[in-house]
Amino acid sequence: MSNSTLEQYCSHLFELFQPVGALENGGVTRLGYSDVEDEMHRIFQSEARALGLSIQVDEAGNCFASNTEGDAYLIGSHLDSVVEGGRYDGVAGVIAGLLTARLAREEGVKLPLRIAAWRCEESSRFGCATIGSGLVTGHLNGADIAGLKDKEGRSVQEVFQAKGFSLHPARIQHVKQYLELHIEQGKVLESKQLTAGIVTGIVAPHRWMVRIEGMAEHSGATPMDLREDALAAASELILAIEDIGRREEDSVATVGIIHNEPNVMNVIPGVTEIGVDLRSLKQEHLEHMDELLEEAMKRISEERHVTITRTLRSKGTPVQLDKTVEDGLMAAAEKLGIPAQYMPSGAGHDAMEFPDLCPTGMVFIPCEKGISHNRLEKASLADVCKGAEVLYTYLKGEEKC
Amino acid sequence: MSNSTLEQYCSHLFELFQPVGALENGGVTRLGYSDVEDEMHRIFQSEARALGLSIQVDEAGNCFASNTEGDAYLIGSHLDSVVEGGRYDGVAGVIAGLLTARLAREEGVKLPLRIAAWRCEESSRFGCATIGSGLVTGHLNGADIAGLKDKEGRSVQEVFQAKGFSLHPARIQHVKQYLELHIEQGKVLESKQLTAGIVTGIVAPHRWMVRIEGMAEHSGATPMDLREDALAAASELILAIEDIGRREEDSVATVGIIHNEPNVMNVIPGVTEIGVDLRSLKQEHLEHMDELLEEAMKRISEERHVTITRTLRSKGTPVQLDKTVEDGLMAAAEKLGIPAQYMPSGAGHDAMEFPDLCPTGMVFIPCEKGISHNRLEKASLADVCKGAEVLYTYLKGEEKC
Repeated sequence: MSNSTLEQYCSHLFELFQPVGALENGGVTRLGYSDVEDEMHRIFQSEARALGLSIQVDEAGNCFASNTEGDAYLIGSHLDSVVEGGRYDGVAGVIAGLLTARLAREEGVKLPLRIAAWRCEESSRFGCATIGSGLVTGHLNGADIAGLKDKEGRSVQEVFQAKGFSLHPARIQHVKQYLELHIEQGKVLESKQLTAGIVTGIVAPHRWMVRIEGMAEHSGATPMDLREDALAAASELILAIEDIGRREEDSVATVGIIHNEPNVMNVIPGVTEIGVDLRSLKQEHLEHMDELLEEAMKRISEERHVTITRTLRSKGTPVQLDKTVEDGLMAAAEKLGIPAQYMPSGAGHDAMEFPDLCPTGMVFIPCEKGISHNRLEKASLADVCKGAEVLYTYLKGEEKC
Repeated sequence: MSNSTLEQYCSHLFELFQPVGALENGGVTRLGYSDVEDEMHRIFQSEARALGLSIQVDEAGNCFASNTEGDAYLIGSHLDSVVEGGRYDGVAGVIAGLLTARLAREEGVKLPLRIAAWRCEESSRFGCATIGSGLVTGHLNGADIAGLKDKEGRSVQEVFQAKGFSLHPARIQHVKQYLELHIEQGKVLESKQLTAGIVTGIVAPHRWMVRIEGMAEHSGATPMDLREDALAAASELILAIEDIGRREEDSVATVGIIHNEPNVMNVIPGVTEIGVDLRSLKQEHLEHMDELLEEAMKRISEERHVTITRTLRSKGTPVQLDKTVEDGLMAAAEKLGIPAQYMPSGAGHDAMEFPDLCPTGMVFIPCEKGISHNRLEKASLADVCKGAEVLYTYLKGEEKC
C-alpha cells in the first residue's frame, strides 16, 4: 500500500470526525460520555465496519473493532476532548489503529487486531481521567466515581444510567499486548526533528500547595532588613523548585499556581501560596524531590523568618511500559528509517491502565510547537501514518509474518 | 504641667473622637469631606475653643485654631481616615498640636501657635491624597481634581459645592514653620525601642508594572531545558529587585503585586506580571534603581529567553525637610531624655506640602508592630505626649522663651 494512499485514508478519517463538536474558533469540545462523543463513536464504528471489522461495545461504552474473536493486539486511544481542545489528542491514536488494520488487510497479513475507542479519557467533564479504560481494567471502582458531577450537576451515575452503561463492567479480556499512538503534547520530538518517540513510561505527579506566611506591611515605611516578605520568600522557593527539577533525573518540577495577599502596590506581601507539580518516571525520584522541597522550605523559612507549610494535593504512581515492546517498536522504526528516540510521557494516557495486564507500548508523534489541549493543536498526517507503520511493522515482527 | 495631667487631657481628646465613624470591628471610617469628617472638625473646634484658641476655617474646609492673628508656628495633621482605618493616623498629630497649645498656656509661655486640621489627607475617597493642604499651598490645582469621583459617583466639585468650599482657595499665609507629629506607620522605632523619629524627608515612589512573557506549556511534557517559564523568570526578577532595594542607600524596593497566567497546576506559566514599587529619599537613588531594574530585566530576559517589558505607573518626587528644624527637634528630644533617631518617612503626609513655603519638620512616634491603615492601629498616649513635648520644647527654643 503506497504512502499516499494511506495518507489519503488518514485524511478521510480526520475529515469525517472534523465537524463533530466543532467550534467557530477552530477547536472542538467533545466531552466524555456526551452525545458529541457518541457521534464520534458512531463514525468510528461505521468506518471500522467498512474495513470489514466487527464491532463490540462493552458495558462502560468503550467501542472495539476486531478482525478476530480471540486474543488480539489491542490498539487504542480515545475520541473525547477537553473543552476547546484540538483534533489530534486521542483521535490520532484511534485513527492509527484503523490505519494498522487497513495496512494488514491491504497486504493480506494475518494479524489478530482489536482497535479500541476509549470513553472519557480527559478529566475535563467529571474531574476524573481514563474512566472508560480505567473501569474495564479494574483500576477505577465504579462506586468511587458514581457521584462525580459535571458542570451541569449531572453525576457519572446518572449519565451512565441514561446511556445504558454500567459502572461495574466486566473486565477486559483477550488482550495479547496493548499499543497506543498519541501526539507528544510536548515539543521534544519537534525540537530534535524526530518523527517518533518510543515511550518508556508515564510519569506521575506529586502535587503540593505550599503556603508562605510573612508579614504584610507598608512598602514605604518598612526598611528592607525588617521585612518578612512572603512573595520574595516564595520567589526563592520557586527558583529552588526549578533547580530540583533540573537536577533530578527523568523528572520535572513546576510551579504553575501563585496566589499573593493582599496583592497591592504599596503593601509588602503577607501571604503567598504556590502550587507545586513534581513529576517523574521513577517513584524514588518523586520521593527524593519531595525531600528536597521540604529541605528548601526549611532553609528559606529559617533564613527569611517566614512560616512555610505544605499540603499534599495528589500523589500518583509512575507507570513503566514494557522494555521488550519498547525495543521492538524502536527496531521497527529503525527498519522503516523513521528517526526515533526513547522518552517518557509527561501526561497520562489510556495506556497506563494496561502494564499490569499485558505487555504495553506507546508511540509518540510530534505536534506543532508542543501545543495541545488547545484549538491550535496540530500534527502532520504523514507523521500519524508513519507512527501507524511503526505499530504495524512491530506487530508483523511479533507474529513473524 | 505634670505628665499625668497631659496624658489625661490627651486621653480625653482621643475619647471625644472615639465614636465618630466608629465601626463594630473596632476600626473607623472617616472619609475626607464626608459628614463624618465634618463631625471630627466640630469636636476639634470645640476643644480648641475650650483652650482659648480662635477658630478659622479656610475656603478648602481646613480648620485652624490660633492663639495669634499674625505669623505663627503651624502644627497640623488630618482628621480623616482610610476605610476601616485606625484612630491614630492623623488624629495623633492634631491632638499633639492641641497638647502643645495647652502646654504653652499652662506654663504661660508666649508661643505664636496655629493648629491645623487638614481635610482629606487620605486618597481613599477620591484617589488623591492631601487635598486640603495641597489646595491651600498651591500644589494641587482645583481644576485638575474637580472631576475625581468617589465610589458613589460624587465628584470633588459636587462635594465642595454642597459644603460651600472652593476648589480655588486663597493661599495659606503667616506660617513661620510647619511641624507635624505622626505615627510612624512602620516598626523601625519599635524595633529599636525609640520614642521619636526625626523625619529627614519623605520618600517618593517610582512605580512600574513589569510584564514577563514566556511560553505556556504542559508541565509534564516539557523538559526543564525546553521551558520559557514566565513565573520562574519573574521570581528571579523579584529577588533582583529585593537586592536593588537592599543595596541602594535610603531606599526600598518592593514587589507587592503578582498576576500569573494561566495559573493552573499542570501548565508552565506563560505570562506573569509584577507591580514594582521603588522608593527613595533621593531623586538620584530613584533614577539609579530604575536603571538597575532595567538591567536586571535585560539580563533575565536574555538568559531565560523570555520577553520582559515595563510600563510606568507613577513617578513621585522625594521631599527633603529642613536640616535646621531636624537638628532643633533632635536637640529637644535629647534635652527631654527621649530616645530618638533621624529617619525618612516612607509614606506621604501633609508636611510634604510645606518645604517650599517654610522650614518644615516632622516627628514620628512608634505604633504597635508598625500596623497602620488598619483597625488594629495602636500608639501609646504617653508617646503622643512625649512627641508633643518635643515640639513644644523645640518651639520654646526657637522663640528663646
